[in-house]
Amino acid sequence: KFEVVTKALQLECGGNGRAFFSPPASGNQWTYGAVSCSEWTGVRLSDVLKASNIKENSIYTGHYGTDIHLSGNKNKEAISRGIPIKKALDENNIIAFGMNRKNIPQIHGAPLRLVCPGWPGSTSQKWLNKIKVLKHIHNGTKMTGKSYKVPKYPTPPGNKVDISDFKIIESMPVKSLITYPQTGLTHSSQKLKINGHAWAGDKYIKKVEITIDYGVTWLEANLYKPVNKYAWQNWHTEIVFPSKGYFEIWSKATDEDNISQPYDINWNPKGYLNNSV
Amino acid sequence: KFEVVTKALQLECGGNGRAFFSPPASGNQWTYGAVSCSEWTGVRLSDVLKASNIKENSIYTGHYGTDIHLSGNKNKEAISRGIPIKKALDENNIIAFGMNRKNIPQIHGAPLRLVCPGWPGSTSQKWLNKIKVLKHIHNGTKMTGKSYKVPKYPTPPGNKVDISDFKIIESMPVKSLITYPQTGLTHSSQKLKINGHAWAGDKYIKKVEITIDYGVTWLEANLYKPVNKYAWQNWHTEIVFPSKGYFEIWSKATDEDNISQPYDINWNPKGYLNNSV
Repeated sequence: KFEVVTKALQLECGGNGRAFFSPPASGNQWTYGAVSCSEWTGVRLSDVLKASNIKENSIYTGHYGTDIHLSGNKNKEAISRGIPIKKALDENNIIAFGMNRKNIPQIHGAPLRLVCPGWPGSTSQKWLNKIKVLKHIHNGTKMTGKSYKVPKYPTPPGNKVDISDFKIIESMPVKSLITYPQTGLTHSSQKLKINGHAWAGDKYIKKVEITIDYGVTWLEANLYKPVNKYAWQNWHTEIVFPSKGYFEIWSKATDEDNISQPYDINWNPKGYLNNSV
Repeated sequence: KFEVVTKALQLECGGNGRAFFSPPASGNQWTYGAVSCSEWTGVRLSDVLKASNIKENSIYTGHYGTDIHLSGNKNKEAISRGIPIKKALDENNIIAFGMNRKNIPQIHGAPLRLVCPGWPGSTSQKWLNKIKVLKHIHNGTKMTGKSYKVPKYPTPPGNKVDISDFKIIESMPVKSLITYPQTGLTHSSQKLKINGHAWAGDKYIKKVEITIDYGVTWLEANLYKPVNKYAWQNWHTEIVFPSKGYFEIWSKATDEDNISQPYDINWNPKGYLNNSV
């Protein structure tokens, strides 16, 4: 009934980089990584929704899966998040049964999962068995309280923020990752080829720059187009070191709206959205 | 015999910003400041040197004062630094007897002091009573060992560096300071006028930029020319805040060679040259 498609789609944990928050934020202490770009095969969420009973006053989805609460307590509801109908109707969201041209592994949500690229990975429900279309913002587990929310305005590190001043995280911000070399490389020649990825929620990346002198001078990397919309973008370049010594390699991506990565963390109580250089 | 001149000249402590080193570096734990721009009145060091017995093989000066060693031990030599003849012959170094149109206060080196602007303040000998012209790099107290020296190449934080790999700090790097507001300001309107200074050793400042979002977007400040060569340059601008909340105001200066302030400390064992944004 629905067309089957395969797309490379980027997913990132909202708490990626949380370990660098000071004062610390509770939750998994992610450092680097916590991001992926796999090829997902399935049907378009938008096709399924359009074939269902969406009404004019439908504004949000609610996603449900077969997993149990992290505590193991079967009386507690497992994570159940959702997205605005507008995002849900984007043709790039997939109800997937395949990952990287094979069946989805159990840990990644077999037999069926949602993939909502560019938004917090928690919206991409694993072990999917139900999608509700709602007249209100979904109120499932991890949709309420401060989960996957940030203050509406910048807040001092360590500050308490009233629950009414939080907003739900939607599109993820511009970010980049160096995949070669890894931290700690000892290297004996003057040149070094480096590479990595960059991504920006619902947007394209326009530029990736590299510095080895804490941001005094920048080298623009060779940046590839994404293999399809919502795939991350690969980049590579070659560093020529001016001397021997210790060098930190930093990468900075800039998105299509000329928004680039910041040089520090915009601190928030739950440790989300660390996209610093 | 010598012409008397008055100039505004910028002096900075080489260990300015040392308190932010991690791991820490020993010495005065300077945070912000440790820089000045006073009007100095005196005679040109270059005029005095030219009237003296400089030879072709003269390469360095040695500065001596009447103060005693910091320990109070009169058997130990007090600080005695020097500069290369080339810098010493620059017409902007002053042997000063006046500061800000008055006699120099005792604490600032009365009755006579050197002012060698743009280089580590320690080269500007207070209580001056002798200048030697040398055929070798001066070997006075705080000219030897690791004093006022940094490694010749970048070094990992906390690393030990062999004494043979150090070089003497000469011209100070580009830097800026926000003088209004001070840290901790509570401000109730959407706009805020800010101002400060910028300087760059022997060079001019070309641009000062301000960010209130950790470097994502920048506002170019209004920058004044220095009142004379080697005076710092004043700047001011007005911030328009996008919302209420917590904002860090950062300033970044760029010198005439397009070298700008870095976003982190190039760590060195003695804690010098922290010119980060």
